[in-house]
Amino acid sequence: MDYVNGPGRNHLFVPGPVNIPDQVIRAMSRNNEDYRSPAVPALTKTLLEDVKKIFKTTSGTPFLFPTTGTGAWESALTNTLSPGDRIVSFLIGQFSLLWIDQQQRLNFNVDVVESEWGQGANLDVLATKLADDKAHTIKAICIVHNETATGVTNNLATVRKILDHYQHPALLLVDGVSSICALDFRMDDWGVDVALTGSQKALSLPTGIGIVCASPRAIEASESAKSVRVFFDWKDYLKFYKLGTYWPYTPSIQLLYGLRAALDLLFEEGLDNVIIRHNRLATATRLAVEAWGLKNCTQKEEWHSDTVTAVVVPAYIDSSEIVRRAWKRYNLSLGLGLNKVAGKVFRIGHLGSLNELQLLGCLGGVEMVLKDVGYPVKLGSGVAAAAAYLQNTTPLIPSRV
Amino acid sequence: MDYVNGPGRNHLFVPGPVNIPDQVIRAMSRNNEDYRSPAVPALTKTLLEDVKKIFKTTSGTPFLFPTTGTGAWESALTNTLSPGDRIVSFLIGQFSLLWIDQQQRLNFNVDVVESEWGQGANLDVLATKLADDKAHTIKAICIVHNETATGVTNNLATVRKILDHYQHPALLLVDGVSSICALDFRMDDWGVDVALTGSQKALSLPTGIGIVCASPRAIEASESAKSVRVFFDWKDYLKFYKLGTYWPYTPSIQLLYGLRAALDLLFEEGLDNVIIRHNRLATATRLAVEAWGLKNCTQKEEWHSDTVTAVVVPAYIDSSEIVRRAWKRYNLSLGLGLNKVAGKVFRIGHLGSLNELQLLGCLGGVEMVLKDVGYPVKLGSGVAAAAAYLQNTTPLIPSRV
Amino acid sequence: MDYVNGPGRNHLFVPGPVNIPDQVIRAMSRNNEDYRSPAVPALTKTLLEDVKKIFKTTSGTPFLFPTTGTGAWESALTNTLSPGDRIVSFLIGQFSLLWIDQQQRLNFNVDVVESEWGQGANLDVLATKLADDKAHTIKAICIVHNETATGVTNNLATVRKILDHYQHPALLLVDGVSSICALDFRMDDWGVDVALTGSQKALSLPTGIGIVCASPRAIEASESAKSVRVFFDWKDYLKFYKLGTYWPYTPSIQLLYGLRAALDLLFEEGLDNVIIRHNRLATATRLAVEAWGLKNCTQKEEWHSDTVTAVVVPAYIDSSEIVRRAWKRYNLSLGLGLNKVAGKVFRIGHLGSLNELQLLGCLGGVEMVLKDVGYPVKLGSGVAAAAAYLQNTTPLIPSRV
Amino acid sequence: MDYVNGPGRNHLFVPGPVNIPDQVIRAMSRNNEDYRSPAVPALTKTLLEDVKKIFKTTSGTPFLFPTTGTGAWESALTNTLSPGDRIVSFLIGQFSLLWIDQQQRLNFNVDVVESEWGQGANLDVLATKLADDKAHTIKAICIVHNETATGVTNNLATVRKILDHYQHPALLLVDGVSSICALDFRMDDWGVDVALTGSQKALSLPTGIGIVCASPRAIEASESAKSVRVFFDWKDYLKFYKLGTYWPYTPSIQLLYGLRAALDLLFEEGLDNVIIRHNRLATATRLAVEAWGLKNCTQKEEWHSDTVTAVVVPAYIDSSEIVRRAWKRYNLSLGLGLNKVAGKVFRIGHLGSLNELQLLGCLGGVEMVLKDVGYPVKLGSGVAAAAAYLQNTTPLIPSRV
Repeated sequence: MDYVNGPGRNHLFVPGPVNIPDQVIRAMSRNNEDYRSPAVPALTKTLLEDVKKIFKTTSGTPFLFPTTGTGAWESALTNTLSPGDRIVSFLIGQFSLLWIDQQQRLNFNVDVVESEWGQGANLDVLATKLADDKAHTIKAICIVHNETATGVTNNLATVRKILDHYQHPALLLVDGVSSICALDFRMDDWGVDVALTGSQKALSLPTGIGIVCASPRAIEASESAKSVRVFFDWKDYLKFYKLGTYWPYTPSIQLLYGLRAALDLLFEEGLDNVIIRHNRLATATRLAVEAWGLKNCTQKEEWHSDTVTAVVVPAYIDSSEIVRRAWKRYNLSLGLGLNKVAGKVFRIGHLGSLNELQLLGCLGGVEMVLKDVGYPVKLGSGVAAAAAYLQNTTPLIPSRV
Repeated sequence: MDYVNGPGRNHLFVPGPVNIPDQVIRAMSRNNEDYRSPAVPALTKTLLEDVKKIFKTTSGTPFLFPTTGTGAWESALTNTLSPGDRIVSFLIGQFSLLWIDQQQRLNFNVDVVESEWGQGANLDVLATKLADDKAHTIKAICIVHNETATGVTNNLATVRKILDHYQHPALLLVDGVSSICALDFRMDDWGVDVALTGSQKALSLPTGIGIVCASPRAIEASESAKSVRVFFDWKDYLKFYKLGTYWPYTPSIQLLYGLRAALDLLFEEGLDNVIIRHNRLATATRLAVEAWGLKNCTQKEEWHSDTVTAVVVPAYIDSSEIVRRAWKRYNLSLGLGLNKVAGKVFRIGHLGSLNELQLLGCLGGVEMVLKDVGYPVKLGSGVAAAAAYLQNTTPLIPSRV
Repeated sequence: MDYVNGPGRNHLFVPGPVNIPDQVIRAMSRNNEDYRSPAVPALTKTLLEDVKKIFKTTSGTPFLFPTTGTGAWESALTNTLSPGDRIVSFLIGQFSLLWIDQQQRLNFNVDVVESEWGQGANLDVLATKLADDKAHTIKAICIVHNETATGVTNNLATVRKILDHYQHPALLLVDGVSSICALDFRMDDWGVDVALTGSQKALSLPTGIGIVCASPRAIEASESAKSVRVFFDWKDYLKFYKLGTYWPYTPSIQLLYGLRAALDLLFEEGLDNVIIRHNRLATATRLAVEAWGLKNCTQKEEWHSDTVTAVVVPAYIDSSEIVRRAWKRYNLSLGLGLNKVAGKVFRIGHLGSLNELQLLGCLGGVEMVLKDVGYPVKLGSGVAAAAAYLQNTTPLIPSRV
Repeated sequence: MDYVNGPGRNHLFVPGPVNIPDQVIRAMSRNNEDYRSPAVPALTKTLLEDVKKIFKTTSGTPFLFPTTGTGAWESALTNTLSPGDRIVSFLIGQFSLLWIDQQQRLNFNVDVVESEWGQGANLDVLATKLADDKAHTIKAICIVHNETATGVTNNLATVRKILDHYQHPALLLVDGVSSICALDFRMDDWGVDVALTGSQKALSLPTGIGIVCASPRAIEASESAKSVRVFFDWKDYLKFYKLGTYWPYTPSIQLLYGLRAALDLLFEEGLDNVIIRHNRLATATRLAVEAWGLKNCTQKEEWHSDTVTAVVVPAYIDSSEIVRRAWKRYNLSLGLGLNKVAGKVFRIGHLGSLNELQLLGCLGGVEMVLKDVGYPVKLGSGVAAAAAYLQNTTPLIPSRV
């Protein structure tokens, strides 16, 4: 039985879980295997090597946890910090809020730097705090690279610059859930100590792997961190890495083969081309929003996210109704507005394995729904704006036959 | 290895093979089974019963040949006719041409009634021929319900009316390849003697089943027809139908389960709703073509096909280049112009499991390609025209959660 | 690329992850969906209702964590207990050992009751401890229902009887990882407070869902338990249960549909029939081991596990070599001996979706490997013993065509 | 809905359709594609090149017909012969009988050389006929390489030797349906003019491709052959081969990708190793039959088939009951006795993607069924005989991790 069952395809434009390429679906359509046979470690070895590339790190150590992004957060925090440790954490939307909630429940001393939703992290405040912290009481900076709720991308290079400027030893922990494999991300260049993502985001897999990558400094920190942890403990993994069997507990065989296929596709297209493609589709989306006369929730261009666009609707419209109708009438899945922006924004996720015509279909659908709910949109206007941009620029697709 | 491999999905808008619903792909993802076990006959029995419904017949006998439409044509002809028999056959495009070629190579005496490509079958000529044929030398009328090359739908009810008017006993053989399960088709009401289709068309399966349905008169004719046939012989099937084992030679297990799933989906949506949906998407497509300032290859509204639209391009453009670029740049598969209309038309197939947003994506893509090749289309114009129609009418989708 | 690639099938006889029925593989072969659409909660609702049935509980509350059995353990412990709480825990093999290690690392005060590997939990000691504990310092009893490393099944009914006898309020926490859906398990009858299993065991899914079921007393305990937890916190789930959206973070869409299919298959066969089938195949396996002249690691019949048989090899043979050759030569996956019994036992997992002939193939393979490594087995002897038993008893398979 | 639905796997041991490797099932689990895009011809080109290898020909021209073996027969005959042409054809079992029936219905003058079922083709008679035929009235020799009904393999090298000895120009048409990809077959060496097979046999695909390979002499003959043919006409294919588009009508996209995967697996294992593996499993099967005290339907060792073994049961047993019970009780699919040997033999198909333990499981199952129906078999005896042989010889499996 299927619960989504209209004719034709579901148009999946939420910012996660995202569309899975058919090649990956096929690779995962298989029986279980014994993970203690020689085959699974041999496969795992290639995965761990290749996963580093999506973080742009050569010195980092990746961990593939059978968990979600929430679990990956917990792993990043508990392995590097001790209860009571002071953290500076930026609150700019629902997902940074949830991470902060987790940080507080894990008994860290969280110094929350809040911005209006739609703005990026306030890095001036960071500079001030670091300047003041001669005693190095701040143990870690926690920042969401891309806030999925508002479509805001923070500038990590600047964060690193500020840390370096003050020669501050705080660890830099980054949530790359809706950025890695889609936005420019450079773990080594930016001195990120722990970066993490989830398999169901730009990697385009099902939910089920929380990928955490730790710098040598983070690994070192994990040796003395006193937070209680077992399932999320890096130590158990490191022990099995040394044995060459890799898995302290049963991995999902299907996700391992899926990850192999997903990485192969990424590298075939070229990670940098993938990032350019995301920018291309995001730009087209933003032009459509503008053509509709609607506002981007993101307040400045520098923060525009290339993986998700949060669109502000006029006050007389409930954005949840847009999402509901899009799904019900047109089999189009859009993202709801969450928490502070509930009812006020709807979100178009444009990350993962997508192309021009899928986006135009989505934009055409959004236009019909906007009209359905009473917004005086000119049908075709957003599609026209997006298409004009797309048609003028050259798609980068892997050379085919 | 995959030969179509851009990011995102292929947009399949050729008039066959068409998109397969995911439920059907899943149903077919299986190992072989022994077709002589009790299970396969039990499954086959339900299929043969249910397949009659797509022909709207209660008295017909369906045959599931492991073949394509070309094979189904051959089965229809050789089982009902003898070499030298006179046939009236309508030539209105590439597929009727190919069928006529087959009729001639099978040594029938074919009376070809030709129309300009873009027009329907000339039924006035049929009336004249029948009126003249007091001796009933005409043994069969062969007509393509929907000519896939030009997007022309013939009026079968009128054909029957003419036959009845002259009380002519000629058999009525109908190619329903690109019509059945998508256009209104009534085997019993219209006195069709043999109707046929292919699995890869509106049934939305892979290629591999040629479905032929024979009226009692056709079955009777098969008993004396002298055309040589073995693989396509109905007799072998009828013998195994009686035994209750159904299969004179090995069927594709996967296609049987796929057909089961495809029929279940059709009946769940409702065959009549499916036909309405095809009309809805076809109307939207025609409005887009008009908005682009292009001509529909089909010369009169009465012939407009709801499964495929052939679009005439200006003389200075090579329509093949449109098809080539659509595929290369945008992963959009359109139909080429064939034979007489090669280079002059491109075709948008809108049959099978499709919905509004898939169509809008396709139309947006066509607009970009038109611009790419130098046609001064207003981007968004076709999408706007289609969307205006679609947004104003209510989609009929099976009630969901 | 596939890492297991001989001709024919892999014979998967490890005690997890186990074989996935084709119907379940098909159900999971799908794209992601928006888990915030109405469809996913509607599906989840049926799952939560039906999952209770495999625990045989009506009053329990199930949680579907995106994790493994290890994570499910952590969830069971941290939601019901506070650091320093006294636990009585039975050490009888590698998996109970690992759970105890987790209990200690989570800072509980663990009272370890050790048995020789191959024996069941020493319940006399439990009785003594409860008798002595007038002050009710013991907060929980932790017991593995079926120790996968040694093939030992503990008697939970007796545990409950002892607890009741002393009217002791300790919570009863049960690891049912390799028992639930395969062995008789009765959460409500036996007063189990938390029971847990993993999707890759008798449920016959991929790894990825840790299923935890909490009694009303456990839910109550969770309100005051002070162990730090976020990802594994029941509170977050309960909050979303109330909202009817069910998921505090992204579930695996594929596993949800897979779980639906797996439960449908279980209920179609009948949970009690499934349990009888496991006993049938296990009995056949034990008879084969006897026929080979080898010893079952499990020391008494009352502890014999119906999901895994650990076979002791003579001292001059390294059991790991048996496992290695079985895989390398015959594509047969057997379980290694772990920790104390490493090199001394190999394990035949006979849980999940298996039938008679799969087992005979496995037993035939084991015989060849035994001979390969120099054990003087009479080829065919184990198969004959197993077949004699199986042939004499009637298979219980769902009525088919 | 599934019609075969016991727990565990179906054990498919009919001589076709055979087990499909998981890699091939995965490769076929996909949507349709436009077969007129550049991708499908590019794929087809590799297939046509590689398909020649399974026929061991460099000069042959392969055709991939969307049909079954029956259709492939028809294509072989109608393209090379004219009505009334004299054919020598060997009747040795049900499948040669069916081919002869086809030859007669296609109006050839068939000179039937009959052998007792269980014997090979009577080549002495062939020699006599050729010696007598100074006028070369014999246009073709039709022979089934491996008669699937009786498990008899004919010696094609000898057929060629006899033809050469008499310098007779008759075409040599060979049904390789249950031999090619499993038995030694050498189209060029043996001067075979048309060889054919079906995808659902040793190629291990679903039913749906009839592969016909024509020698240059056969191609030449096709230019003047007068048999009526359209669907099965090589000319249409050859025309499209020249155009580089390959397909006169719609191929099954899924089977093309499946064929690619199947060929890749064959070449990876090595075609010669595949043939050795078939001999290995067949030898083990024959040893089991001997151990059971039953007779092989094949009367001499030189005719023993390595793809199917027909087992003669004592007169007091109905072999159909064996097949029925095997399926019903043990999910084991065996081949029925057909026509003259109905009720007298059952058949074990051991072709395609199989390994040792699958075979042992099957043999164990057959033993239980034999006992079920009252034959005094010693349980384990056949398995022991097979295992003794298998264990003593080294499996040839592609080197893995």
